[in-house]
Amino acid sequence: MPTPEPEAPQVEVDTDDHAKGYQQPEVDVAEMRRLLDGRHHEVRDLVRSNLAEHAQVLLDQEQMSTADFRERVKDVVVMMAETGQTGMGFPEEYGGGGDIGASIAAFETLALGDLSVLVKVGVQFGLFGGAVLQLGTKAHHDAYLADLVSGRTMGCFAMTESGHGSNVQALGTVATYDVEAQEFVITTPDDASRKDYIGNAAAHAELAVVFAQLDVEGERHGVHAFVVRIREGGEVVDGVRIEDCGPKMGLNGVDNGRIWFDGLRVPRTALLNQFAEVTPEGRYLSPIDNPNKRFFTMLGTLVQGRVCVGGAGINASKVALAIATHYAVRRRQFEATDPEQEQVLLDYGMHQRRLLPLVARTYALHFAQEVVAAQLHDVFSGPGPIEEGSDEHARRMLESRAAGTKALGTWHATRTIQECREACGGAGYLSENRFAALKADTDVFTTFEGDNHVLLQLVAKGLLTDYAGEFEEMDQLGMARFVAGLAVDTVVERTAVHKLVQSVRDLLPGGDTWDQEAGLLDPRYQLAMLRFREEHMIGGVARRLKRGIDQKEDPGAVFSRVQDHVIAAARAHTERLVLEAFVAKAAELPDGDLKVALNLLCDLHALSTIEADRAWFMEHGRLSSTRSKAISREVNALCRKVRPLAVDLVDAFGVPEEMLRSPELLAWGE
Amino acid sequence: MPTPEPEAPQVEVDTDDHAKGYQQPEVDVAEMRRLLDGRHHEVRDLVRSNLAEHAQVLLDQEQMSTADFRERVKDVVVMMAETGQTGMGFPEEYGGGGDIGASIAAFETLALGDLSVLVKVGVQFGLFGGAVLQLGTKAHHDAYLADLVSGRTMGCFAMTESGHGSNVQALGTVATYDVEAQEFVITTPDDASRKDYIGNAAAHAELAVVFAQLDVEGERHGVHAFVVRIREGGEVVDGVRIEDCGPKMGLNGVDNGRIWFDGLRVPRTALLNQFAEVTPEGRYLSPIDNPNKRFFTMLGTLVQGRVCVGGAGINASKVALAIATHYAVRRRQFEATDPEQEQVLLDYGMHQRRLLPLVARTYALHFAQEVVAAQLHDVFSGPGPIEEGSDEHARRMLESRAAGTKALGTWHATRTIQECREACGGAGYLSENRFAALKADTDVFTTFEGDNHVLLQLVAKGLLTDYAGEFEEMDQLGMARFVAGLAVDTVVERTAVHKLVQSVRDLLPGGDTWDQEAGLLDPRYQLAMLRFREEHMIGGVARRLKRGIDQKEDPGAVFSRVQDHVIAAARAHTERLVLEAFVAKAAELPDGDLKVALNLLCDLHALSTIEADRAWFMEHGRLSSTRSKAISREVNALCRKVRPLAVDLVDAFGVPEEMLRSPELLAWGE
Repeated sequence: MPTPEPEAPQVEVDTDDHAKGYQQPEVDVAEMRRLLDGRHHEVRDLVRSNLAEHAQVLLDQEQMSTADFRERVKDVVVMMAETGQTGMGFPEEYGGGGDIGASIAAFETLALGDLSVLVKVGVQFGLFGGAVLQLGTKAHHDAYLADLVSGRTMGCFAMTESGHGSNVQALGTVATYDVEAQEFVITTPDDASRKDYIGNAAAHAELAVVFAQLDVEGERHGVHAFVVRIREGGEVVDGVRIEDCGPKMGLNGVDNGRIWFDGLRVPRTALLNQFAEVTPEGRYLSPIDNPNKRFFTMLGTLVQGRVCVGGAGINASKVALAIATHYAVRRRQFEATDPEQEQVLLDYGMHQRRLLPLVARTYALHFAQEVVAAQLHDVFSGPGPIEEGSDEHARRMLESRAAGTKALGTWHATRTIQECREACGGAGYLSENRFAALKADTDVFTTFEGDNHVLLQLVAKGLLTDYAGEFEEMDQLGMARFVAGLAVDTVVERTAVHKLVQSVRDLLPGGDTWDQEAGLLDPRYQLAMLRFREEHMIGGVARRLKRGIDQKEDPGAVFSRVQDHVIAAARAHTERLVLEAFVAKAAELPDGDLKVALNLLCDLHALSTIEADRAWFMEHGRLSSTRSKAISREVNALCRKVRPLAVDLVDAFGVPEEMLRSPELLAWGE
Repeated sequence: MPTPEPEAPQVEVDTDDHAKGYQQPEVDVAEMRRLLDGRHHEVRDLVRSNLAEHAQVLLDQEQMSTADFRERVKDVVVMMAETGQTGMGFPEEYGGGGDIGASIAAFETLALGDLSVLVKVGVQFGLFGGAVLQLGTKAHHDAYLADLVSGRTMGCFAMTESGHGSNVQALGTVATYDVEAQEFVITTPDDASRKDYIGNAAAHAELAVVFAQLDVEGERHGVHAFVVRIREGGEVVDGVRIEDCGPKMGLNGVDNGRIWFDGLRVPRTALLNQFAEVTPEGRYLSPIDNPNKRFFTMLGTLVQGRVCVGGAGINASKVALAIATHYAVRRRQFEATDPEQEQVLLDYGMHQRRLLPLVARTYALHFAQEVVAAQLHDVFSGPGPIEEGSDEHARRMLESRAAGTKALGTWHATRTIQECREACGGAGYLSENRFAALKADTDVFTTFEGDNHVLLQLVAKGLLTDYAGEFEEMDQLGMARFVAGLAVDTVVERTAVHKLVQSVRDLLPGGDTWDQEAGLLDPRYQLAMLRFREEHMIGGVARRLKRGIDQKEDPGAVFSRVQDHVIAAARAHTERLVLEAFVAKAAELPDGDLKVALNLLCDLHALSTIEADRAWFMEHGRLSSTRSKAISREVNALCRKVRPLAVDLVDAFGVPEEMLRSPELLAWGE
């Protein structure tokens, strides 16, 4: 931080707390930062120092032409690659770090800086590199990994088309096997099937992993991936046409493009053949018979991208909160208490309400992200690439958790950055104060790597089918159709309300009236509320779907009517996972100020989450109007307790000073 | 629209409606547009045709350097001024149109196009021109108005400082009267007092209206305005220093700058002397004795800016909704009902939920804006500038209404544009599809012309003091202090709950149980709910403030604790005004399809507003959990009824085709 903070004013402590012996904690910033940084603190610090070294890129983003800035971003990416930062997830024999968890940590931390750099890294090492690693076999690894890990060869990930984004199974690009030539012929049949928004395509990629419908001897086998050369010595090859997507809202350091294939011929070995093979004579072979299952297994190996984007959203939020919180303890406005001096913003109740629950939620999402990243690490750190035989249930849980965390983490970024910008007033509108780029660059996070609404439907599908394999194999239309199946009865049975209440009351003091008697600050109460909501919503969705189908209604119309309920259930599920992660993290700490501070944040997060949906809890008999109002009062009281810790709590995010820029915001108003 | 729409699918009509004889209406787009355009349809069409003529500016915004784009925007502004579009609010003798209502309508409509042009117009003709007109007298009018109306002389409005935005009374710039020289000496005492974010200052303004603390013979008289030359033939004059604010999140066609004054000498006649005068020999004279009252009277004359920004926010939302709605009836995603064809986005329940309540709310805010614009016209169309003797109560009501509508209209823009961008997926991220500029340019609307939270506090102050003059005269610290006053008792008495319920039940069927028995679609019920909420919240705030003061607590601390409640009360008040405007507009229509359609929208707006705050209504005994759930179901049902009308409803906004651009979004997916 540039200069020391003004002294925090005396906190208004409730008399009740004094009676209970509550002592306002102090936060040791370094200690809290170690807790947040966790297992991969070393790689996080490496990224922080790389960010600081290349901090000029934040200015370049404003000052350079798009063409120059794209080159600059590419150079920064290659320089970072040289430090090993971006290759953590690749095997050591190809120059990687052999540590998937470290790779996620590095990517998340990179989100504290310029986000074109982040996304370029994501495209090159996550999407392109990840596809070669996960979908390819040794020959592909030997041919490409070392050069892509070093950044010598740039590649792109050509999946999305103009006509199809989230519905990947419906892609239009076709790869037809020509037995004579032992080649695949890749074709874009119409403009809706051109590849679109492809990062790295407009300028830098030499190679592309292309997703296309595989056609062998007139038979369609679904979407498969091919590694294809699209540029040779910087020139686009024959049979490929590339167009620039033009200026975007943000991320203009990434060269997004559109690609058309006009009968491009590639060798048979271009097929990334981890899950399917075409023999020279044109026989299609796959260890996975069911085409839907094969497709989702392939896609499942790419789950890392979602984990990364969710983490990036959470970390971008930290930058916004660090700036807005520092501003809020410096900027004074109106003489509210002292006629001689205006009051600091963060001493206003409304300002606390605007920022502090977002700080708490950022902590919550950080720890939830830690869990999903650790699970990813475990699932993918088995011996070699994922085989069909590995634990499918664990993989499905991971995919669901990654989808939910991505949705919540990226929506949190959109909301937090917006609130922080507004909380910094006109100064927040100037580019040098970071919000312009933060806002514009993160905006698409809610869309790419899976539209958030579509992802939450994926989460709901898992919940309704209990992650059972046979239901996962349904195609996307299945979301409407499976409702006629047996699973619904199981879900309805499992989530019957009296069972829910019964299982909860065993855990909590108060017995049958647990929801009226438990202490608001008892984490068992908070978790019970979120668990009840989740189970009740899933049961409700299942019942509504079943009723519609039983009445012979059109499944699509039934689904459309229930869709907001489906999405609410998925959200409730993910919220529960987030709170569990936070509660568990706080519980494992030894007694002391750090634990007290984390518990304050956890309470603030839990109660503001319940408060935000208190209407639902009242509608479903779990919250009296009196208790509902008590929760709002408690959120206010918690904000007042967190207020004196606010600066330390955001400093513990460890955003490098160079990344904050904001000379005006951080220096004015004293 | 570029090409005809695909046929809307059959709407799912509830059987209940059939019983009631409900007939799905058809919307005559031209008729609905006439209704929306209202009294000032001619000037709206003039602006539309000017926008279409200069549509190239939307592309220039992406392609030009900042310096070039600033010049381009200035040129467009001057060309528009030539058509009379921008001078509607000035007296005819100076080349204006002499019609304030038309001036607001023109400005609002301009928000359908590039927003740098809009803001440049706002700065030149609204802020700078408005200050000369309202705060100056005939000599100033004769000297400046004709040239500023034509755009020959550019000016800026130098109010905000780095250290003080919303708290205008605390500005640091000083204007000291030098009796000897009969001049004012304007000085910037420190960097916190430099003028900041001043539009038109960095490049184009020759003149500035400067707000400064008036010092006469060592006595301070509060903030006054001076018209000051800051450039001569394009060069900054001696005694003035100007710095560019640099790149901003958006609105980069406007040249925002910072200004320092180093003992700049201006003649005595530079004081805009409508409300105060300094005689040559140094006597301070004002018809308004109380300095606070004088200050707020001066500021009150500038209310037009807030009315304009609110209207601009509402109209920018229309552009976003027009694009997203057209996309939603073209883009198909997943085979939800038909295995052979993917389903159109707007046939998904969730997508209807995302967009259609926003369409309804845009209609609601449009009609609310119509009311505040008409009131502004009436208040300001009296004989000559506002004198102290004119109807103060009406002016205070107008200021409050303008503040509330500005806050709701601009927050609506932020939210609507974001939702529409996300609803258009990755395509929404490309600059050519308009959301990039819409989002970046409108972002600061929630801040400029008064931060929304500060404005809502102003609204609350009016509610608590019942717009009584003596309370309006308190300074800003008053928000905390007046609570000790008599007014609270009056408010508490007026808003006693049993009185509220009593007054409501006389209006509605159901008597004592009106809130359980009235039909959800009865506008009297909907209004009663919003009125009840408003009154109850105001009473609650008054009681909480009074209790704190009675207990001798620090008024600032009491206020800080109650602040979110204060803001909620102001929001509830403005929501009630918005719904009243919509209900009144629908009621005055003759029977027919247009009325049926408008009533559908009005119901959708009213019930989604109640639904959004249903927790509050449950907490305060006005909504059972059963009825609360029924409201959510009804909102879904209304969405399904509005669905087939959606395209016509957004076409009726009359956004010129050239302003939609978005070739990809509007042509794909069929």
